[in-house]
Amino acid sequence: MNFLDQLLRAERAHHSLLCVGLDPEPARFPGAWKGDAGRIFDFCAAIVDATHDLAIAFKPQIAYFAAHSAEAQLERLIAHIRAVAPQVPVILDAKRGDIGSTAEQYAREAYVRYGADAVTLSPFMGFDSVSPYLAYPDKGAILLCRTSNPGGSDLQNQRLAEVDGQPRLYEHLARLAQGEWNTNGQLGLVVGATFPDEIARVRELAPTVPLLIPGVGAQGGDARATVKAGYREQDGRITGLVVVNSSRAILYAGNGDDFAAAARRAAQAARDELNAARS
Amino acid sequence: MNFLDQLLRAERAHHSLLCVGLDPEPARFPGAWKGDAGRIFDFCAAIVDATHDLAIAFKPQIAYFAAHSAEAQLERLIAHIRAVAPQVPVILDAKRGDIGSTAEQYAREAYVRYGADAVTLSPFMGFDSVSPYLAYPDKGAILLCRTSNPGGSDLQNQRLAEVDGQPRLYEHLARLAQGEWNTNGQLGLVVGATFPDEIARVRELAPTVPLLIPGVGAQGGDARATVKAGYREQDGRITGLVVVNSSRAILYAGNGDDFAAAARRAAQAARDELNAARS
Repeated sequence: MNFLDQLLRAERAHHSLLCVGLDPEPARFPGAWKGDAGRIFDFCAAIVDATHDLAIAFKPQIAYFAAHSAEAQLERLIAHIRAVAPQVPVILDAKRGDIGSTAEQYAREAYVRYGADAVTLSPFMGFDSVSPYLAYPDKGAILLCRTSNPGGSDLQNQRLAEVDGQPRLYEHLARLAQGEWNTNGQLGLVVGATFPDEIARVRELAPTVPLLIPGVGAQGGDARATVKAGYREQDGRITGLVVVNSSRAILYAGNGDDFAAAARRAAQAARDELNAARS
Repeated sequence: MNFLDQLLRAERAHHSLLCVGLDPEPARFPGAWKGDAGRIFDFCAAIVDATHDLAIAFKPQIAYFAAHSAEAQLERLIAHIRAVAPQVPVILDAKRGDIGSTAEQYAREAYVRYGADAVTLSPFMGFDSVSPYLAYPDKGAILLCRTSNPGGSDLQNQRLAEVDGQPRLYEHLARLAQGEWNTNGQLGLVVGATFPDEIARVRELAPTVPLLIPGVGAQGGDARATVKAGYREQDGRITGLVVVNSSRAILYAGNGDDFAAAARRAAQAARDELNAARS
């Protein structure tokens, strides 16, 4: 089953477009765990246990593990997700991007070592930095396209003088991901929630690829506008899927012993808000 | 001492522009070590011991460690370089690129956890994905600019319609790295050896930033053309430094028990060839 079908299965099972982002910051851990990087697994596993039936995907951000030498905890966490929620795909947020022989190593890291179902990638080095990931036909590769950080415009918003119609760089990437680069239907795109008009533009250029949309919640994107801009269905069938990530607003919804219950309430509210926006 | 000064000190000490890339592939390890990922440290340490007096820098590529769960071996390796060659800077080749809060985690990974002197970065997400690295004033941040892989042209070579003079994306980046983005003199640029004309163009636009040039050796770039295009000195003082990387041509120069001696001979020849091209 390819990555898009895995997402659609989880969407059906949980009626959810919500991706729960796992960005553990020990300084924000609750109560006695505060500051204890040895509790990264425990904290994230508690979040997974409390939210997995509300999620279309989990997205661990590898930097938060690597900064604390917590790779082994990340391995355990992904194994834990498999055990408690085998139907929820795992997107490893790593934004890798390197030449072919090195990309093969990164693909092995994401898909084999960690067992992720998809990985985020930077397209800066072009197609041959993406293609090694496509050698794993059941796995997804989600390319940065239009990011919501202030500097996202520095390059992504530039118009390309020599491409037909002078599209912006992110528009050019959306076309490539829908067409020429998507040799086996494995690609997705990262589009920030801060700019709904640009989500809509990406959806127009890439009608069927799944869009991973961070920036709702702590980063200030509006859930309703995001879904309207990127989500498409026809005759009750989803034709344009959005996977809307929320990390900090769920992880740190509470900071006492009831943090997992608070995370569940925040996830439930986020899921409901996203679903309300579909109609 | 900032990163450029560290490089210049190593250049003076070893009269070398050669960066030894550490991309350990267990399948290519010599003799009885073949295939043994537990020997990654031993293999790389032997290369370091055999070549450190010939090098301006070492560049471990983190993907080759991460694919084999060998982060602890990478930590030991960088500590080993510190012990045997404290004057040789370490560039962690990681090509990270993410938003500010995540970039802070990656900076911590590279500079604090591993103790690297510099890290390679992808500029796709713009300046605020670079600036968190500049909070470490003694450390370097080396941005991808023009890469030598076949897909390098897909985005980097595109002309930007709305920037004065319609520069190519890599030219635009070279200008930003020399000027606006280089708030504290910490930036370098990665430029592939395959296109000497483009190295020369980057040097013209970024006259003083150090250029990290992979692709000489196994990837087919010509050492002489590379140095001519990127290296500049005036009155015996280096004004435009190039750091020319060779990985596989050194690491796998021999595959028997004498692999370290063979690596030393290959490194010596590469250093001499690069030095000959300076005059």
